[in-house]
Amino acid sequence: MVKELSLKADLLVQALPYIQKFNNKTIVIKYGGNAMTTDLLKDAVIRDIVLLSLVGINIVLVHGGGPEITDMLNRVQKESVFVDGLRYTDKETMDIVQMVLCGKVNKNLVSLINSVGGKAIGMSGMDGGMINAVKIRNGDKEYGYVGEIVSIEPKIVNDVIEKGYIPVVSSVAQGIDGSEVYNINADTVASELAVALGAIKLILLTDVKGVMLDPSDEDSLLSHISASDIADLIERKVINGGMLPKIECCLNALNGGVERTHIIDGRIEHSILIELLSDEGIGTMITI
Amino acid sequence: MVKELSLKADLLVQALPYIQKFNNKTIVIKYGGNAMTTDLLKDAVIRDIVLLSLVGINIVLVHGGGPEITDMLNRVQKESVFVDGLRYTDKETMDIVQMVLCGKVNKNLVSLINSVGGKAIGMSGMDGGMINAVKIRNGDKEYGYVGEIVSIEPKIVNDVIEKGYIPVVSSVAQGIDGSEVYNINADTVASELAVALGAIKLILLTDVKGVMLDPSDEDSLLSHISASDIADLIERKVINGGMLPKIECCLNALNGGVERTHIIDGRIEHSILIELLSDEGIGTMITI
Amino acid sequence: MVKELSLKADLLVQALPYIQKFNNKTIVIKYGGNAMTTDLLKDAVIRDIVLLSLVGINIVLVHGGGPEITDMLNRVQKESVFVDGLRYTDKETMDIVQMVLCGKVNKNLVSLINSVGGKAIGMSGMDGGMINAVKIRNGDKEYGYVGEIVSIEPKIVNDVIEKGYIPVVSSVAQGIDGSEVYNINADTVASELAVALGAIKLILLTDVKGVMLDPSDEDSLLSHISASDIADLIERKVINGGMLPKIECCLNALNGGVERTHIIDGRIEHSILIELLSDEGIGTMITI
Amino acid sequence: MVKELSLKADLLVQALPYIQKFNNKTIVIKYGGNAMTTDLLKDAVIRDIVLLSLVGINIVLVHGGGPEITDMLNRVQKESVFVDGLRYTDKETMDIVQMVLCGKVNKNLVSLINSVGGKAIGMSGMDGGMINAVKIRNGDKEYGYVGEIVSIEPKIVNDVIEKGYIPVVSSVAQGIDGSEVYNINADTVASELAVALGAIKLILLTDVKGVMLDPSDEDSLLSHISASDIADLIERKVINGGMLPKIECCLNALNGGVERTHIIDGRIEHSILIELLSDEGIGTMITI
Amino acid sequence: MVKELSLKADLLVQALPYIQKFNNKTIVIKYGGNAMTTDLLKDAVIRDIVLLSLVGINIVLVHGGGPEITDMLNRVQKESVFVDGLRYTDKETMDIVQMVLCGKVNKNLVSLINSVGGKAIGMSGMDGGMINAVKIRNGDKEYGYVGEIVSIEPKIVNDVIEKGYIPVVSSVAQGIDGSEVYNINADTVASELAVALGAIKLILLTDVKGVMLDPSDEDSLLSHISASDIADLIERKVINGGMLPKIECCLNALNGGVERTHIIDGRIEHSILIELLSDEGIGTMITI
Amino acid sequence: MVKELSLKADLLVQALPYIQKFNNKTIVIKYGGNAMTTDLLKDAVIRDIVLLSLVGINIVLVHGGGPEITDMLNRVQKESVFVDGLRYTDKETMDIVQMVLCGKVNKNLVSLINSVGGKAIGMSGMDGGMINAVKIRNGDKEYGYVGEIVSIEPKIVNDVIEKGYIPVVSSVAQGIDGSEVYNINADTVASELAVALGAIKLILLTDVKGVMLDPSDEDSLLSHISASDIADLIERKVINGGMLPKIECCLNALNGGVERTHIIDGRIEHSILIELLSDEGIGTMITI
Repeated sequence: MVKELSLKADLLVQALPYIQKFNNKTIVIKYGGNAMTTDLLKDAVIRDIVLLSLVGINIVLVHGGGPEITDMLNRVQKESVFVDGLRYTDKETMDIVQMVLCGKVNKNLVSLINSVGGKAIGMSGMDGGMINAVKIRNGDKEYGYVGEIVSIEPKIVNDVIEKGYIPVVSSVAQGIDGSEVYNINADTVASELAVALGAIKLILLTDVKGVMLDPSDEDSLLSHISASDIADLIERKVINGGMLPKIECCLNALNGGVERTHIIDGRIEHSILIELLSDEGIGTMITI
Repeated sequence: MVKELSLKADLLVQALPYIQKFNNKTIVIKYGGNAMTTDLLKDAVIRDIVLLSLVGINIVLVHGGGPEITDMLNRVQKESVFVDGLRYTDKETMDIVQMVLCGKVNKNLVSLINSVGGKAIGMSGMDGGMINAVKIRNGDKEYGYVGEIVSIEPKIVNDVIEKGYIPVVSSVAQGIDGSEVYNINADTVASELAVALGAIKLILLTDVKGVMLDPSDEDSLLSHISASDIADLIERKVINGGMLPKIECCLNALNGGVERTHIIDGRIEHSILIELLSDEGIGTMITI
Repeated sequence: MVKELSLKADLLVQALPYIQKFNNKTIVIKYGGNAMTTDLLKDAVIRDIVLLSLVGINIVLVHGGGPEITDMLNRVQKESVFVDGLRYTDKETMDIVQMVLCGKVNKNLVSLINSVGGKAIGMSGMDGGMINAVKIRNGDKEYGYVGEIVSIEPKIVNDVIEKGYIPVVSSVAQGIDGSEVYNINADTVASELAVALGAIKLILLTDVKGVMLDPSDEDSLLSHISASDIADLIERKVINGGMLPKIECCLNALNGGVERTHIIDGRIEHSILIELLSDEGIGTMITI
Repeated sequence: MVKELSLKADLLVQALPYIQKFNNKTIVIKYGGNAMTTDLLKDAVIRDIVLLSLVGINIVLVHGGGPEITDMLNRVQKESVFVDGLRYTDKETMDIVQMVLCGKVNKNLVSLINSVGGKAIGMSGMDGGMINAVKIRNGDKEYGYVGEIVSIEPKIVNDVIEKGYIPVVSSVAQGIDGSEVYNINADTVASELAVALGAIKLILLTDVKGVMLDPSDEDSLLSHISASDIADLIERKVINGGMLPKIECCLNALNGGVERTHIIDGRIEHSILIELLSDEGIGTMITI
Repeated sequence: MVKELSLKADLLVQALPYIQKFNNKTIVIKYGGNAMTTDLLKDAVIRDIVLLSLVGINIVLVHGGGPEITDMLNRVQKESVFVDGLRYTDKETMDIVQMVLCGKVNKNLVSLINSVGGKAIGMSGMDGGMINAVKIRNGDKEYGYVGEIVSIEPKIVNDVIEKGYIPVVSSVAQGIDGSEVYNINADTVASELAVALGAIKLILLTDVKGVMLDPSDEDSLLSHISASDIADLIERKVINGGMLPKIECCLNALNGGVERTHIIDGRIEHSILIELLSDEGIGTMITI
Repeated sequence: MVKELSLKADLLVQALPYIQKFNNKTIVIKYGGNAMTTDLLKDAVIRDIVLLSLVGINIVLVHGGGPEITDMLNRVQKESVFVDGLRYTDKETMDIVQMVLCGKVNKNLVSLINSVGGKAIGMSGMDGGMINAVKIRNGDKEYGYVGEIVSIEPKIVNDVIEKGYIPVVSSVAQGIDGSEVYNINADTVASELAVALGAIKLILLTDVKGVMLDPSDEDSLLSHISASDIADLIERKVINGGMLPKIECCLNALNGGVERTHIIDGRIEHSILIELLSDEGIGTMITI
């Protein structure tokens, strides 16, 4: 019994150098709807975050919520119009997006963090004028209330970190004229926020292993990609589909001064702790 | 021209003693869905709040959102079950309530405040573990996820006030076991928060003139009621219907140390400023 | 009645964007003896200053006191000697100047500010070693204890602003060797102090409308002069006499980084508020 | 040479325990006009004060200025009216009193402190609303603008001490209605201020040795009187004349919690340092 | 591999509620010479302490050093004189004790903490005047420079904790007259310091399992003793010998407001972490 | 009597400008074993330091302890091996060095400071990771645990100064890999610490008068040497022997930005005060 406890304690102590390395540093974690698959996994992610916060690491949690949005749109029987394969976000849809992200997903994450003893505060890109956006445009195509970030004012995030809270951020922004609200890609919000906050790490929690040479072979995972490899990997179609914008978010963060970016598998229990508190890490790390 | 400006300036200067009186004091304002009738009125309320905040008064804005909730329930074709005339809030309804209050009404108020140059931060009773509640019970009757407040932890509100933000609070609370969410009457949240924050004033913005001896005669408005008058006024049915719980919230605040409570008409433009920055005041003031 | 109050409140709200613009900024106001004509006007100026201070603008009030000095010199039957049209300030005269400015005008302004609920602290250029001066010289001419500023140490002004007081400054300086006291032109003190404090605005309150193309025609007021116009206006004698040194003080402030300088008419009630809290402004603004 | 310096250093070191005893404590010193006899003595007093301030003792200097006031009244040929032997202070006289105290004596002390490297800030009872007074009355007799203290707000004194300045206070107060100015006995101001500041010591610098059994015999000095001895000493006329009100000021301070009060001879060079930094002390100490 | 890491991470997360419980609380640990048996164990103790410090628990480490003292006395061929079985500490011995504790054991612990990334500061009871003692007396018997604590001034410990250091304290005190140095029992120092600091826990790291009913049977360990059991356990000789004074130190701490005290086995790796971060705990807990 | 006290006070006041000059500045004093000759002298040095600390000068005391080390080595009958005239410091010797410096000399100085009312905290180069060193090498010669400084982390010294303590520093450092301890020349520690702390003065207290042209003639003392004179003085053997490394330490400090360095005679009572608080100074000053 004591032997077992002693071994457990030894594992804790092994985390010491990692905890020291990240002490008082800021890490932005994007936690996507696709990685929120089971309550058990969600609970593990939340406990990881509260633990990291407690050992002195400033965690900023950015979330999306695709599945919940789709679910709600179905419930109000809102049919989607697609433009070039992208869902057109009309005013009514944007209202639903805002409600689901800021009112449901965000507050549920806050509640979960509270329930395991953390102190979270939920916020959107509107709060404190944090994220300012304009309508995205692509030639003469219109996607409605889908925005791109014009500027980030990270003061409110730093203010609540300083007061000891874990900020949980919805990927919704205000229009630069203050009257409209835009839906922003959550990976992009995480990436830009990491830059604005001077974070040392950006972690995108997804539902894949990482970048794989052969998607059918888990052993083909690339555990480390440097920025210079990326063009070649795209050409070879190793990076494609939904992975492409994620890699771009990582590159954007790296160019903005973030030291390391990671695409890790949220379906593996405690993948965040594994990434941060072991040498082996998990998933794919992208660095300059 | 100059003469006109000079007269305007004189009006500003007349506000001086009132501004001095409330400087650095906390005032809780409940802004209800029924008082949010037109965009023009909403804009006037918001500008009042930003102005008061700028002149050094700590405003805490608590909101409900009945009409928007009803609207959303209709859209998802959720039929309401009533228990003794009270809507039964099942889990599905509670989800809608949470989404509408925290995701729509709250963030829209935050956006409005930002758009006139204020710095707001929206929060619910879950954020920072602010409001803890249990299921309301009335004998063996069940109203579902309707809660009553067990405790308030005002630290998060004071923290964001200290950092210079205007807190905007949704009347949704977490269960004391951390796993459920409850809908709380917004007047009650405002009243209890006023006590917990040591506010000097509680203002309930409604869609009536105040307490009137004869509802059909506007001149019969009672501009001042003292707590000792209330039992008699209830017996004489002067205070009845929806006014009853509001008066109770005022009494609760007075008993908790709040100096003055007010029921004022949100349909009158700038009614908050009129109340705070003139001798005449507006609506009905209830004091010990 | 309520309608009237509502209109008044609307005027207050119109001041909102101006208050926001100057929030937490420093503005130096020179309030000269010639603009202190009636108690009513003095009261209006003082209320303007207290209001601005209360809404978060850091006001520094610099004053002279020519008429009171003349009055006191007459009472002690001190005859004035003139050198090239400038009054020679002998030791005895300097004593009177110091007493009148620091002991009478300064403390009366402090008292007035207190009486309307502000918190003022009076000081001279000697207090905290704020203003250091040497005897002014013009070839071999001597003007006695008339000084020019060698250096300004604004720490004491910032210290009292930080503690929430309105500094009221007499235009008297100490000699750089610490043993003598010099009379300094109050406009010059205001201008140099504005530079030393990093003020965004310098306002000279005078007894004229501003710079006028034709002094006999009030409609010929120049509401905006840019620095590059000044040489021409001097040559055309539009700027002449007592206006010349005032314009020089403005130029000096502009060169030192002050954004905008104003010469406004202290005889108009609330001219300071009109200048700061309206688009139209008042008097003549001089900018780079 | 070195031997001499070594002896000097030894004297410095002997002051160590006294400096430690008063470190970070507040001492109020009343420095009266009669003790400001020569420039040399004034210089010694000022250097004492700056030294004490530098070694971490919070000195508050209160001054009067009788001789300068008389001198100025003579210069403006103002004749004095006496009521029961007390000078009646009409409005004109009060103006002179204010100017001389706040504008001349106060600023000259500030200048002197600056000139030996201290940082002083001069203030009156009007600044920061420090001293509030009403007209003194004695039955139906009227003394004009002679006031008695109603309340002291010591915040401004503590604020400037905290910022590192030596406050120099003129004994002039504002009327409680804010519109009048009153002359207050400087000993009384020092005594009340010592109480309001929680000072541990009150020192009245005068032009006598202290309380003497036989005024013609310097060896008859009473170096220590306890409060219980006073009634007897008054009856025996040992304490009489101008000493009576001084003793009353000491008693008032002792009753207000000041530990020790002293009446010492300002004509002896460095009498303040001798009192504070030696066992022998100087003059008469009055304690409970 | 990932599975293994995931399990490890799960162990970390299990520590979460314990870490939260002790967050920002003070725990005093006595680490005795007898428990410093091997470098491996010492290393494990040190890593436990650094980890606890990093997760926001204020650890104060008190140490003795019996074996090292004995070793040094042998090296200088100092023979010990015994009084009633207690070693008499003459001046020469005290010098050695001070040197070994403050110069060797203390600094080696500081070095060890630094070497695993902690920030320690070593101090004795002399530093900052922390521990004041007098010579212990027992009738007319004399034990030399063995002291008992008269007073503890914990300010220096709180000061260095506030600055982020782990205080390491040698059990040597200054005489109350400032001229002598006394050796104090390290358990006593730990107990008194726990009281003075308002610690919630006192942990005595020893070389025994805890209190055992039968010393030859490890399964007879008493895992929890309440204060009321102790008299009986002493009478039954369950608590005897070297355990007696340790139990007294625990009782003293409990009486002084420390919530829980522990006697645990320093020979078990990570016994501190096991005690703090598991439900089972280790060794014997003594509570009120 | 009073006359005498008045003269004494005058001496105190003469120190005023010197105290002002060094107010809030840092001065590093090396106090060597050779200058600790008598208890009387030690007491004088300590009182000088406490007085300087009390008047707002930040004193950092660095000490060696050659004679005590030699004494202890003799007691343990450790024979010294010499390499090129330098004592070889084996592990056993290093242990003794550490114990004597950190455990005896350091704590005795701390005790002495406390006994005259100062607040000292003793520390070594290991505490807070302050001094990091490597083994000194000279070609293939080995001197054992004699180190040279690689880096200084002055944070711990500034932290304790900020909290109001006088840091007393032993010249022992940790190896850069954290596992070894090195003996460092105390003059070197003082010099490097002065640079790292941005001190304005370095004072080396020795047992000689200073640099003398003719060692047998005290009148040949050079009271001021500028850096450019040194090469010539070395060539002329005026600077030789033990003075050479001291002069090098001074040069190193000067090159690192320290304004003035001094070699003064610790055998003269109050030599530190004489140096700091008189124009004449004492010993030899070396400047750029």
